[in-house]
Amino acid sequence: MIVSMRPHASRAEIDHVCERIRDFGYKVHSIEGEERVVIGVVGVGGDVTACVESLEATPGVERAVRISAPYKFVSKEFKKDRSVLRIDNLEIGGDEFIVMAGPCSVESEAQIMETAIAVTSAGAKILRGGAFKPRTSPYDFQGMELAGLKLLAKARENTGLKIITEVMSDRDAEMVAEYADIMQVGARNMQNFALLKSLGRCGRPVLLKRGMSSTIKELLMSAEYLVAHGNSNVLLCERGIRTFETATRNTFDIAAVPVLNELTHLPVILDPSHATGKRSLVPAMARASVAAGADGIIVEVHPCPEKAVSDGAQSLTIPQFRDMMRQLAPYIELWKEWRAAQTSVAV
Amino acid sequence: MIVSMRPHASRAEIDHVCERIRDFGYKVHSIEGEERVVIGVVGVGGDVTACVESLEATPGVERAVRISAPYKFVSKEFKKDRSVLRIDNLEIGGDEFIVMAGPCSVESEAQIMETAIAVTSAGAKILRGGAFKPRTSPYDFQGMELAGLKLLAKARENTGLKIITEVMSDRDAEMVAEYADIMQVGARNMQNFALLKSLGRCGRPVLLKRGMSSTIKELLMSAEYLVAHGNSNVLLCERGIRTFETATRNTFDIAAVPVLNELTHLPVILDPSHATGKRSLVPAMARASVAAGADGIIVEVHPCPEKAVSDGAQSLTIPQFRDMMRQLAPYIELWKEWRAAQTSVAV
Amino acid sequence: MIVSMRPHASRAEIDHVCERIRDFGYKVHSIEGEERVVIGVVGVGGDVTACVESLEATPGVERAVRISAPYKFVSKEFKKDRSVLRIDNLEIGGDEFIVMAGPCSVESEAQIMETAIAVTSAGAKILRGGAFKPRTSPYDFQGMELAGLKLLAKARENTGLKIITEVMSDRDAEMVAEYADIMQVGARNMQNFALLKSLGRCGRPVLLKRGMSSTIKELLMSAEYLVAHGNSNVLLCERGIRTFETATRNTFDIAAVPVLNELTHLPVILDPSHATGKRSLVPAMARASVAAGADGIIVEVHPCPEKAVSDGAQSLTIPQFRDMMRQLAPYIELWKEWRAAQTSVAV
Amino acid sequence: MIVSMRPHASRAEIDHVCERIRDFGYKVHSIEGEERVVIGVVGVGGDVTACVESLEATPGVERAVRISAPYKFVSKEFKKDRSVLRIDNLEIGGDEFIVMAGPCSVESEAQIMETAIAVTSAGAKILRGGAFKPRTSPYDFQGMELAGLKLLAKARENTGLKIITEVMSDRDAEMVAEYADIMQVGARNMQNFALLKSLGRCGRPVLLKRGMSSTIKELLMSAEYLVAHGNSNVLLCERGIRTFETATRNTFDIAAVPVLNELTHLPVILDPSHATGKRSLVPAMARASVAAGADGIIVEVHPCPEKAVSDGAQSLTIPQFRDMMRQLAPYIELWKEWRAAQTSVAV
Repeated sequence: MIVSMRPHASRAEIDHVCERIRDFGYKVHSIEGEERVVIGVVGVGGDVTACVESLEATPGVERAVRISAPYKFVSKEFKKDRSVLRIDNLEIGGDEFIVMAGPCSVESEAQIMETAIAVTSAGAKILRGGAFKPRTSPYDFQGMELAGLKLLAKARENTGLKIITEVMSDRDAEMVAEYADIMQVGARNMQNFALLKSLGRCGRPVLLKRGMSSTIKELLMSAEYLVAHGNSNVLLCERGIRTFETATRNTFDIAAVPVLNELTHLPVILDPSHATGKRSLVPAMARASVAAGADGIIVEVHPCPEKAVSDGAQSLTIPQFRDMMRQLAPYIELWKEWRAAQTSVAV
Repeated sequence: MIVSMRPHASRAEIDHVCERIRDFGYKVHSIEGEERVVIGVVGVGGDVTACVESLEATPGVERAVRISAPYKFVSKEFKKDRSVLRIDNLEIGGDEFIVMAGPCSVESEAQIMETAIAVTSAGAKILRGGAFKPRTSPYDFQGMELAGLKLLAKARENTGLKIITEVMSDRDAEMVAEYADIMQVGARNMQNFALLKSLGRCGRPVLLKRGMSSTIKELLMSAEYLVAHGNSNVLLCERGIRTFETATRNTFDIAAVPVLNELTHLPVILDPSHATGKRSLVPAMARASVAAGADGIIVEVHPCPEKAVSDGAQSLTIPQFRDMMRQLAPYIELWKEWRAAQTSVAV
Repeated sequence: MIVSMRPHASRAEIDHVCERIRDFGYKVHSIEGEERVVIGVVGVGGDVTACVESLEATPGVERAVRISAPYKFVSKEFKKDRSVLRIDNLEIGGDEFIVMAGPCSVESEAQIMETAIAVTSAGAKILRGGAFKPRTSPYDFQGMELAGLKLLAKARENTGLKIITEVMSDRDAEMVAEYADIMQVGARNMQNFALLKSLGRCGRPVLLKRGMSSTIKELLMSAEYLVAHGNSNVLLCERGIRTFETATRNTFDIAAVPVLNELTHLPVILDPSHATGKRSLVPAMARASVAAGADGIIVEVHPCPEKAVSDGAQSLTIPQFRDMMRQLAPYIELWKEWRAAQTSVAV
Repeated sequence: MIVSMRPHASRAEIDHVCERIRDFGYKVHSIEGEERVVIGVVGVGGDVTACVESLEATPGVERAVRISAPYKFVSKEFKKDRSVLRIDNLEIGGDEFIVMAGPCSVESEAQIMETAIAVTSAGAKILRGGAFKPRTSPYDFQGMELAGLKLLAKARENTGLKIITEVMSDRDAEMVAEYADIMQVGARNMQNFALLKSLGRCGRPVLLKRGMSSTIKELLMSAEYLVAHGNSNVLLCERGIRTFETATRNTFDIAAVPVLNELTHLPVILDPSHATGKRSLVPAMARASVAAGADGIIVEVHPCPEKAVSDGAQSLTIPQFRDMMRQLAPYIELWKEWRAAQTSVAV
């Protein structure tokens, strides 16, 4: 930690700051500059966040900046090797690029079955579909809940696809865990810490979506919650952030892929459907996702988007999904070479 | 709703859109422009969101735009008169400007009592203090939980202050409701719909904080959740939004006050502490809050900010809070005149 | 400056960084932490920006952070006393709260004269009006140019108002300076450095509008351009920043007022018209501007907004402007007391 | 255009709005909804922007929304076929993916020659290098100006590379045009309309960088300025937008590629160097740029980034650039197939 004092801070203020630092168990290393004193905080001591906040509240201090990363278990420093999430014979984060696909909401047996069969045959390995839906309006469709989960399970039996579905409350965690292979935490719940704690204890793999205005660092901190509470089976998901641009539903922060690959060992999944909000933009963004080095994508597909109860505008039709998968194939071949070469290269 | 077709959409596409609109129970009113056809959707029909989303997913459609507000009960159209929230003899949204003050976290009996006594004597009517704390890091102080709630209740007994405190999970709603006069929903939980539904049923007054990247419309939609699920005792709170500016912790969107005053009958509370993140900026922003026409403010105060376990940098000391209240007094006098005049004036 | 090395940076990398720092003429002060080495750069040396950028590009370096402010002449450290801009007998930044008012564009003699007379009688001291208009579309009205400047000069003769008007290109600077008392640099030109340099040399007072996505620090750096090139008669203007919120045209960053008051001695003017984009929100934001401690406001007024060639929706009518000025009067009285007390108090 | 009246607007207000619309030469087509009246504005009439703004300022109007695009010449409706920019035998927007590379600033003959030779041999076709530098601080290196232009010309003679360099003021346009093959308008000048007009008249090809907080629509409007003033040789460049995320220098809005490909016939160039600000992220983002369907990229390369006078942290070394070009090669092969197939497919 580095504490920079205001210019002209008094000797008494500086001494008081040093004393506070020592109270937290750290050592003081001060640098007298031309304009101001800067204090290095070193050694092993108490609660770092509390110490930073305390110093920022202390008279004479201009800024206290933490230098070490605030997360630990999810960092590359903690674990150099890439984490691979295994579900039965399926590996995410390994040598295969994974495609998750399906409708925004589970709507009926016919709808989910038709989709499941179609996406399997086109190469998807995981079926997405919401049974609990976070909707901005209380008057919108809120999901089929338990009935939806059962339909997902049935689709799994028929196709062999794994199931990913959203959990919205710690109250539902157990129920969802009974049916889901991967529990999805939606963007709006990325900092629902009660939910994160319960998913930490629950143990099922979790796909954690980045909040629409969350920084990459905050995403990693939320992942740290899961790991610190016992669950290291975590996938990170970038799904677009909120900016001033309105031509797309969100702004697809694709640079998050190489950034995360430098910071963490966890797999990274991209969601070009939510990132753009528009069907016609999805294939180009899926190709870019493979090229950027993601571990997989999650894409919305619906047999009849104009009859979808939610997110129709961004859902691919089944033929469009097939076409996209054909487009992706040669990029995935390049991806495999790149992945294989990664162990030996560092830019 | 207005549906604008792509330029050169075919007659078959236009007919199909009209049919979809009639399927939802609406009437069609189409306008043939020079470049394109625009279709007005009128009358009383089915689920508006579903209809918009369906049309946006229909071939030939460029955009479907809802014109009526997506919220109802919280709108000024639904209720012209300003809502006043009554807790015993206290009125929020009425003729008095309300100050809520207290520490970020409840830390100890001594801390909360000293603060409670000081803020009462300076003119605050409501004591804030967190017993459940949403913290970015799993390693930070997570709150005293039940013990904290009990200390707040004790402070209420000693001072007559009402209590506002945060609830983070629908699991805790009942427990918190036993102690709190106002349940606070934090910015990170503004779209935790499971929590909103349970607070709708619970009935206790709720202060709903705007999410750090939520639009004003989304804030009103979350308030609508509370009302639609049975609880119309809702206060809205602007606490700063996330932008590119880093000189302040958040960007204080003070124009939300007159915007909300035009759109809703619910009281509006401002939080200059979280909006700025810096103690020295709070008094100027508190004065501006009064002048802008808010119904009250919520401010962080701590007997010794540098020993606070959280948010020390933005907490006022007790003397600073007293000084701020003295500064506010003449502004509050002007506010009362303004409030009294409001019934008869509309700009 | 503080240079934080990557964890596990090699001794050779650290030595190389120290050498680079010494090449720039600075002294090295290194701190060996538990995880990494942090290097303090002290003393008086060469080009700071170049040094920071060089170090950030040097192997083993994680981050190089400048601690001293990158601006000098505009900072409070350079000049403790508040700057007062004098134009004849008018003082901006002094004991009076200044109101600038007028139409977005100068459109005709009748329009500008009617407005000028009305705003003078209501208490404005400075007339605004664009003769050169930066318009997003090449097909929109681009301003009356020289003819507009002449009308502004005529309005000055008739009313005694000072004139503020925008200059868009260094080519026009001399011409505009012949007519204007204050040269306005629009938000889109805040980082048009060729223009800033020419206005530095020109010497006329400048009102520098903050770019719609510029940080407060960048605003100060652009002001520094003016001062460094010879012109210290600078007013800063906050006019709303671009965020995700669409309920207002921009987001009014009112906290910029106390932030700037801490960082600089230059006067601060607020523009509630562009900040909100909506006439009905302007009076509340003008009251808040006074209460926040700005030195003045600049407001759009038009005799018939619905016939304005630009910005009609945010222009007040003349009666609305008069009403706003009446509302502001008691706030301005409080402002005067506050301003008088400022010399002796610091929060 | 669609005008939506406030709920309960009076008949007189509605009639007045219709009259205003007819004043502008348009026909009125009104729709009486359950809650409000919506008015369609059709036919061929006067200045659309003025009409929208006028109506928004008219009593009883809630919103006036333009439906047709505000740009014309740059739109796909105006010209269906993709524009190809030809400079001698080089085509941009055609069948080849174009790489522009070079240092941020021209610093010396040795530096620019070494870079030029290296990037040519690695496959770049165009040399970038700034002779006029827009720098946030007046104290930073401002470019070699004319001497820099001459060095670029010399590098062109030696290597056959075309030259792209920034022009910052309409005063310098002629001088820069004498040396440059492509005139670059920087992000900060995207809405410097005086500059755009002079480049419209000048005729040299222009690469127009998107402003850091400009929407895609605004980028197209600025391109429209160039075309409307006589210059249709325009390249668009996405170089990252400003958001709340600080892990990267800007946020790379890669979805702008397919969005622009739907809206305009102009070629689209991506700048992964400025978008990320960090050398190690550039190769992954370059791969993604090819896969997304851009027409080319512009990348910063320096023989010794740690001695660069600007942007060292984001500049690739020469070996890193070579390695990146090798990585890109198979992606560019796929790009060529995709480009060839594009004429016949539309998603």
